[in-house]
Amino acid sequence: MNELTDKIASREAVVGIVGLGYVGLPLALSFSEAGYGVVGFDIDPEKVALLRKGVSYIESIPSERVASLVASGFDSTVEFSRINEVDAIIICVPTPLDEYREPDVSFITSTLETIKRFLRPGQVISLESTTYPGTTEELVLPVVDSIPGQVGSDYFVVYSPEREDPGNKSFNTATIPKVVGGVTEACTEVGRLLYINVISEVVTVSSTRVAEMTKLLENIHRAVNIGLVNEMKIVADRMSIDIFEVIRAAATKPFGFTAYYPGPGLGGHCIPIDPFYLTWKAREFGLHTRFIELAGEVNASMPEWVVSKVVGALNSQEKSVRGSRILVLGIAYKKNVDDARESPALKIMEMLQAGGAVVEYSDPHIAAFPKTRKYQFDLKSLDVNPDMLRSYDLVLLTTDHERFDLDLVLEHARLIVDTRGVFGTKHKHVIAA
Amino acid sequence: MNELTDKIASREAVVGIVGLGYVGLPLALSFSEAGYGVVGFDIDPEKVALLRKGVSYIESIPSERVASLVASGFDSTVEFSRINEVDAIIICVPTPLDEYREPDVSFITSTLETIKRFLRPGQVISLESTTYPGTTEELVLPVVDSIPGQVGSDYFVVYSPEREDPGNKSFNTATIPKVVGGVTEACTEVGRLLYINVISEVVTVSSTRVAEMTKLLENIHRAVNIGLVNEMKIVADRMSIDIFEVIRAAATKPFGFTAYYPGPGLGGHCIPIDPFYLTWKAREFGLHTRFIELAGEVNASMPEWVVSKVVGALNSQEKSVRGSRILVLGIAYKKNVDDARESPALKIMEMLQAGGAVVEYSDPHIAAFPKTRKYQFDLKSLDVNPDMLRSYDLVLLTTDHERFDLDLVLEHARLIVDTRGVFGTKHKHVIAA
Repeated sequence: MNELTDKIASREAVVGIVGLGYVGLPLALSFSEAGYGVVGFDIDPEKVALLRKGVSYIESIPSERVASLVASGFDSTVEFSRINEVDAIIICVPTPLDEYREPDVSFITSTLETIKRFLRPGQVISLESTTYPGTTEELVLPVVDSIPGQVGSDYFVVYSPEREDPGNKSFNTATIPKVVGGVTEACTEVGRLLYINVISEVVTVSSTRVAEMTKLLENIHRAVNIGLVNEMKIVADRMSIDIFEVIRAAATKPFGFTAYYPGPGLGGHCIPIDPFYLTWKAREFGLHTRFIELAGEVNASMPEWVVSKVVGALNSQEKSVRGSRILVLGIAYKKNVDDARESPALKIMEMLQAGGAVVEYSDPHIAAFPKTRKYQFDLKSLDVNPDMLRSYDLVLLTTDHERFDLDLVLEHARLIVDTRGVFGTKHKHVIAA
Repeated sequence: MNELTDKIASREAVVGIVGLGYVGLPLALSFSEAGYGVVGFDIDPEKVALLRKGVSYIESIPSERVASLVASGFDSTVEFSRINEVDAIIICVPTPLDEYREPDVSFITSTLETIKRFLRPGQVISLESTTYPGTTEELVLPVVDSIPGQVGSDYFVVYSPEREDPGNKSFNTATIPKVVGGVTEACTEVGRLLYINVISEVVTVSSTRVAEMTKLLENIHRAVNIGLVNEMKIVADRMSIDIFEVIRAAATKPFGFTAYYPGPGLGGHCIPIDPFYLTWKAREFGLHTRFIELAGEVNASMPEWVVSKVVGALNSQEKSVRGSRILVLGIAYKKNVDDARESPALKIMEMLQAGGAVVEYSDPHIAAFPKTRKYQFDLKSLDVNPDMLRSYDLVLLTTDHERFDLDLVLEHARLIVDTRGVFGTKHKHVIAA
């Protein structure tokens, strides 16, 4: 243990990051910036090739930052045999849901199978992927047990959930406190030492299960609160009450209330997905997670509700969906990011197109419609101007990017459906959704 | 309008507060302290008699404060004909639920019926009772319409929800921002002027309905978040995870998460009740408020869950509930208050007694068990000491008042069931519930 912690303290330790996406890449850069040797591992040769050339594929990470760290030694590879070279292995692979909404931990298990042969005593392994309580003990530990010696003295295993928040202007990888729980107390301490030179605050907890549950609770809290305001939006809409005005007024209470805002549905690769990891695990204990399931149901139904508002708005102009030209503003799942994964805008576009509308989009963060298994649109982001705005029967605001010129939209669009409450309720050609 | 607003500005206006309970009394005192003539109205002659003698019946309000204001002119009465003397009428009567969990607005309607004859032009009427969206327009306005002239020019009607939080050490009546929505814009402005000399910040909204919905959203948010952590507590308990440790760890995330803590169930006269006002009204629009209903169900089931933990704890000592001596610590619905309304501790005591336990209690804020329609216990609060603690088979902590000596309890109680997570999970004789 002392040998490893000495190397960590002196920054002689080499850190291996497995999975170079929205979580792994900023973390790899942070370790590199803190003076550690860093090797990034990914199964995607394209990503590795870009990084080696000093090119970033994430909007919020400038290529200059990558290039400068590559120059000072940040390395990336598809060769997992090099796991043997590193002292710390941090696993940041995706944990999606399968088509039956059950946890798909195959990226974790395949990573473990791949790296198993290259593990050695003196290493610390940290899992960062969001997952159900028990994963580290049930999936990771049995595999890394192949390392000679004892966990907690010869090698170390921790769970430390990622808390990345792309687009957050106040906090980044280095300033978001990091929760760490180890398989043993010594593991927790090694984990703490690993992160404390890179992240301003490390919060230790008593077990890997507590750390796993912590991340799930954070995202469950968010999914349920968004579900709640989405339900409240529908109720308020029927009562001719502007829910955004209500939320802003409630937010003036200086205690006991936190504002969450409704939208066209949940998006991103965390909030719509993570909660169901607990739902799945709870079944093993004969329990239902009813708030999670209700939130999932309400949030998943929002795109349909938005479409019904679009249908109603067109109908008020004696138009059908079929044949109408609709411009969707914003396909990213939240404002100011370049990520359309799980974005409700995609589902809405699909439904409108299925209804016969001509659908186009503008998103200053996403130049071309991303290829997904679910949605096929051969579209490019359009530039917004007065003439083009006037050429659509309806403009649907799905994501309120700061780069949109809302005054221009308000002035020139003939009919607007607003899912973000940005236009208020005083304009006759704006329908809240 | 100018005559009334001039009187308000110059503090010549006399303010009448109807209902002198947890909401009306502190508000009456605040207006009195701000230099207004205040007449308090209540149907309870006992309350009025106490106030006239300068005696407070609310723990957080010292009698000296009342006495000093009585000396300088604060008056209380059961004579509602004196409504004619006042310029502003602020209605702070209770809005409970009936036995079918439907809104009981009879205190509002009976107040209106009583004061109707004594209303006159030049008055502003403000409803503060928590209620469903539409109440002011549907119940208040038709009655006060009997005043000669026009609403918005000859008399004024607003809704301004109370936000009292007994026991809150950071905020009080005067420093909690106040939301005001009027029947007309002029009404809103008169309402704003009425409160702004007494309360540090007044937030105006576009209608009475928005103001009504604001208060409901605040308490719905709270009921749902407490319901969520109560459900999470049960899941975590089965997984041998300490939910309090999880919540504390999640709370280190500096954005996107707000900590709510589980407990033995919901209490007080707001959070368990108010949300169902929206549930009821939503039915008129053919809508279900599913989060509210789920929260109600989960929160209402917590006392049973706590009792099951008590049964299990006693069973582990080979004891039955029948014949066991159980001490309940804290019967107030939340810490540091003297209010046992809707407190889950009462339901738990009833269930344990029904099971044959000998149940006693200690609550430094509630000297004698309050008489309620639902619960009959002829008990007085006991002083806690080592010998008495040892004399019980089980000590159940239901409310974590700061006045409790927790170390003493931990040392001398033979068996503890802890519903507030104050004792941690490291003591063998403490069972989390």
